[in-house]
Amino acid sequence: MLCFRAFGRLRRSGCLRAGLRLKCPDSKGVVASVAQLLFGFGCNILSSDQYSDVEADMFYQRVVFDYSDLLVGPGNTAILERGIAEVARKYDMDWRVSLAAKQKRAALLVSKLDHCLYDLLIRVESGELSCAIPIIISTQVVARRFGVPFRHLPITPKDPASKAAQEAQIDAILQEEGIDLIVLARYMQIFSRDFCERHWRHTINIHHSFLPAFEGARPYHRAYERGVKVIGATAHYATSDLDCGPIIAQDVTHVSHRDSVPDMVRKGRDLERTVLAKAVRWHLQDRVIVHDNKTVVFE
Amino acid sequence: MLCFRAFGRLRRSGCLRAGLRLKCPDSKGVVASVAQLLFGFGCNILSSDQYSDVEADMFYQRVVFDYSDLLVGPGNTAILERGIAEVARKYDMDWRVSLAAKQKRAALLVSKLDHCLYDLLIRVESGELSCAIPIIISTQVVARRFGVPFRHLPITPKDPASKAAQEAQIDAILQEEGIDLIVLARYMQIFSRDFCERHWRHTINIHHSFLPAFEGARPYHRAYERGVKVIGATAHYATSDLDCGPIIAQDVTHVSHRDSVPDMVRKGRDLERTVLAKAVRWHLQDRVIVHDNKTVVFE
Amino acid sequence: MLCFRAFGRLRRSGCLRAGLRLKCPDSKGVVASVAQLLFGFGCNILSSDQYSDVEADMFYQRVVFDYSDLLVGPGNTAILERGIAEVARKYDMDWRVSLAAKQKRAALLVSKLDHCLYDLLIRVESGELSCAIPIIISTQVVARRFGVPFRHLPITPKDPASKAAQEAQIDAILQEEGIDLIVLARYMQIFSRDFCERHWRHTINIHHSFLPAFEGARPYHRAYERGVKVIGATAHYATSDLDCGPIIAQDVTHVSHRDSVPDMVRKGRDLERTVLAKAVRWHLQDRVIVHDNKTVVFE
Amino acid sequence: MLCFRAFGRLRRSGCLRAGLRLKCPDSKGVVASVAQLLFGFGCNILSSDQYSDVEADMFYQRVVFDYSDLLVGPGNTAILERGIAEVARKYDMDWRVSLAAKQKRAALLVSKLDHCLYDLLIRVESGELSCAIPIIISTQVVARRFGVPFRHLPITPKDPASKAAQEAQIDAILQEEGIDLIVLARYMQIFSRDFCERHWRHTINIHHSFLPAFEGARPYHRAYERGVKVIGATAHYATSDLDCGPIIAQDVTHVSHRDSVPDMVRKGRDLERTVLAKAVRWHLQDRVIVHDNKTVVFE
Repeated sequence: MLCFRAFGRLRRSGCLRAGLRLKCPDSKGVVASVAQLLFGFGCNILSSDQYSDVEADMFYQRVVFDYSDLLVGPGNTAILERGIAEVARKYDMDWRVSLAAKQKRAALLVSKLDHCLYDLLIRVESGELSCAIPIIISTQVVARRFGVPFRHLPITPKDPASKAAQEAQIDAILQEEGIDLIVLARYMQIFSRDFCERHWRHTINIHHSFLPAFEGARPYHRAYERGVKVIGATAHYATSDLDCGPIIAQDVTHVSHRDSVPDMVRKGRDLERTVLAKAVRWHLQDRVIVHDNKTVVFE
Repeated sequence: MLCFRAFGRLRRSGCLRAGLRLKCPDSKGVVASVAQLLFGFGCNILSSDQYSDVEADMFYQRVVFDYSDLLVGPGNTAILERGIAEVARKYDMDWRVSLAAKQKRAALLVSKLDHCLYDLLIRVESGELSCAIPIIISTQVVARRFGVPFRHLPITPKDPASKAAQEAQIDAILQEEGIDLIVLARYMQIFSRDFCERHWRHTINIHHSFLPAFEGARPYHRAYERGVKVIGATAHYATSDLDCGPIIAQDVTHVSHRDSVPDMVRKGRDLERTVLAKAVRWHLQDRVIVHDNKTVVFE
Repeated sequence: MLCFRAFGRLRRSGCLRAGLRLKCPDSKGVVASVAQLLFGFGCNILSSDQYSDVEADMFYQRVVFDYSDLLVGPGNTAILERGIAEVARKYDMDWRVSLAAKQKRAALLVSKLDHCLYDLLIRVESGELSCAIPIIISTQVVARRFGVPFRHLPITPKDPASKAAQEAQIDAILQEEGIDLIVLARYMQIFSRDFCERHWRHTINIHHSFLPAFEGARPYHRAYERGVKVIGATAHYATSDLDCGPIIAQDVTHVSHRDSVPDMVRKGRDLERTVLAKAVRWHLQDRVIVHDNKTVVFE
Repeated sequence: MLCFRAFGRLRRSGCLRAGLRLKCPDSKGVVASVAQLLFGFGCNILSSDQYSDVEADMFYQRVVFDYSDLLVGPGNTAILERGIAEVARKYDMDWRVSLAAKQKRAALLVSKLDHCLYDLLIRVESGELSCAIPIIISTQVVARRFGVPFRHLPITPKDPASKAAQEAQIDAILQEEGIDLIVLARYMQIFSRDFCERHWRHTINIHHSFLPAFEGARPYHRAYERGVKVIGATAHYATSDLDCGPIIAQDVTHVSHRDSVPDMVRKGRDLERTVLAKAVRWHLQDRVIVHDNKTVVFE
């Protein structure tokens, strides 16, 4: 069953997986209370990761559990959620439960460069990424190779109204298709502050530098001019503050004086693909918790 | 207080840290039982890592907790241990509690090459590794730079009796100095089966290849001859099966046709130092659980 | 012009690129003789890499030059080659000149797993790899997404004649299509000794381990069983000695106890793709010189 | 003989090594002219690396040659240099010849943190770095473990005169000791513009971030606050523009939300040591050519 994939690899057959993510001020007894609650409801904890941020005095946890033996019946997870809500109130928790059976729906937004687009489509097709991709949106015409519906929403660079119109169309499509995740797979437009504020929690962007170095345009050109010996890529949630959102994943590769800008572009493509795919996978598996402008990632 | 360092960085002042490591057949309720027990005794769980090995149907956990408010008094951890033993019986657990206040004592064994030796001494001196080093043992005379007592136990290569005698002397020193951890920091002798069987659980060796490639002697020469493009280093528990013990840490670096054997030796030194230091740190912080011939490392 | 790409990035417009690769016993004057010869013919050396293997007393060089001002006319490279042949005789050189204008033709062979196949096709389409791909050959039916002709040559596992017949068919296709390079992009059949001996110099295989560890079948399973902390991929020329041919490129990635075999397979896919693409690119750009069982790669 | 080490590993016994580094506007015939000149003088080219920067239209070369059979006698390298000067004039070259027999003299400057200091001393002692270290200079008292003379030149933070006085003392020491290379091994003072302008070509600094990110003070704290997933170290020539000089070497390591600032400091130490050692080794072996604000490094 496809649904089992969402939190990682298949475990025992017949299990029904759910993930609980939570954050709260750090205090004694949280771990025991959560474990006791799930155990009391007949759930089996399959894995648990936790982290205490001493500086911020915050506690983070991700628990994956099997609810196939839920005492109130596996169809009644709403009752379990009410139980969690009560514990949450006690500890002032911010929490969310996701059922693995409910697959997320992602929209891919892309401009001219299609290497990240193809890479994600191949990973979905091979089952490495568990999500549905009902729509690809682009300012350009891109090849249709994987049978995914494609919407061409061009922008007239010098007409601000065209940009606003495009954003409205995107919003309508997201609504219509029931999109849970927006992936900016080398999408070269900047969204309005309003759009970002409504969507950033489920919008992942790939930037082609190791942030915070080379924020903004033409990072490979600026890396070349600075004479750096490493280049990088960064996947982050796309807040209204350009390239300053919470970082999910980063990686770098070595370059030398022999690498021209086109060489950096080529080497960078491999980085961008793997870093973006990693961030998307972690997001789809509910492994990321955002706090302030940082992420806790339970790999 | 130095003692707090053993499980990682300092947390709240005034806390008393202990680590519980356990493994048992995977079953429902383990996590809740352990959390409940510690909570019931007045302990505060500072961090918890767990892992379920689906193939082997085994469960592993490492819990670090503060017992400064232990209800039976922080001096009475023996009572807490009796409580754990009861839970352990129920789940058929293999378990161990370590108190951070009790610093481990390590013996460093070395032959001619002293880069790993110096590296470990510098890390202990800087506080990066939390342990006492009461003794260095070597078949050669090495420089004394850090004021650590040094025992020169030479071996006459063609006299097997000399080897057995050296081993007996080492055993006596380990006993005398109350050694908890033996670090073979490029120690080029092979111990007897009997010695290994008694000590392997607390003996870490650094081998200068990415095992299982190039087990045994002269790995850099053989890597050069094979024309590999990466070389590596492996830290592992030293069982009686040469270079086949449970692997704790590995890393590699790239080489090219330009790298001669001496170049590989030079590049390898940096790998050996960092890989060995990492494994020693994890062992000292009780982050490693061995099962069969593999390790679970809670980083 | 596409032809300019074969040796790397575009340089001055209007230049005609060629590459000279040579190896010979190391002796005084080789560098000066080659430089003088090319200069005397009116060629401009664009880049030159050389390496002296002291152990083997061998000298290797790769010179890329512009022959657009060839004194005997750029159409008469045969005369230049006669000049090189004379110098070569003096120094006992093994040498080869490739004109960038002549694009290589590669056949991709694949079994069930298609991630390397798609990856190579995408890189060719984007211009990152400069070659023609006239044919894909597989024992299975694979999807046709990039408009490349596909030949399905199945094998009946228990019928040795079927294997020999398939090999003969492959040989005929290679002949017919004028193939310069065979890429075994996760092709799970072992060729006959005779086939390997005729083709190994232009056959690149990707093996899913860091050789020489885990040669042969099921390397990820064996890596999992050994409990290694890194996994790797190796691209090599496919000699008749299984997984023992000259290594062109290798890379690794870290794994932990949490990585199951399917996780290793997933992580390994990214390695296999990038390592194979790198080796194919270097081969296409005539950057690889083989000596004995090792490679000199002028990156 | 130790002196042979300066350009890499020992080659044939009895050879006398020299290195020629040059840069000039790119033009036809440079390679042939240089090779011909050295050959004509009876020198044997041991290795040669070159690079043409198409953007800047510049040519760079490093040639290592054996002058033991110099026709005018190996003691008369001045005559060879006159020959090179003539070729250089023709091509408008900036060039320098270094004789391996002449060992460089390095001064190590350090503040409180001594991990880079010890690391360099150990590498010199083991023969990995070929240079003399006649003096260590520090604003603090550091341990004397390797018998190297030590000068304590404290600074009174609030007294600018104390800073100027210290700089004058340093200048005097550099003069007195015949220093060729200044290594700022975590030296936390900023030199005056005048000092930098006189010394930057032979002053290597290690900065604890992947520049250009986190220039200036407290880079680990700022990396922690930004929530990056990689941290880095950069070795560069210390120009008067703080942390903006030509980069020689960089490397990074992964971090996660679990890494506090002290964890980053610990992980960073290993980076700083290896990156600084690499840059120092390349500089000592005359592998670095600076052009504008970038480096060409012939590894």
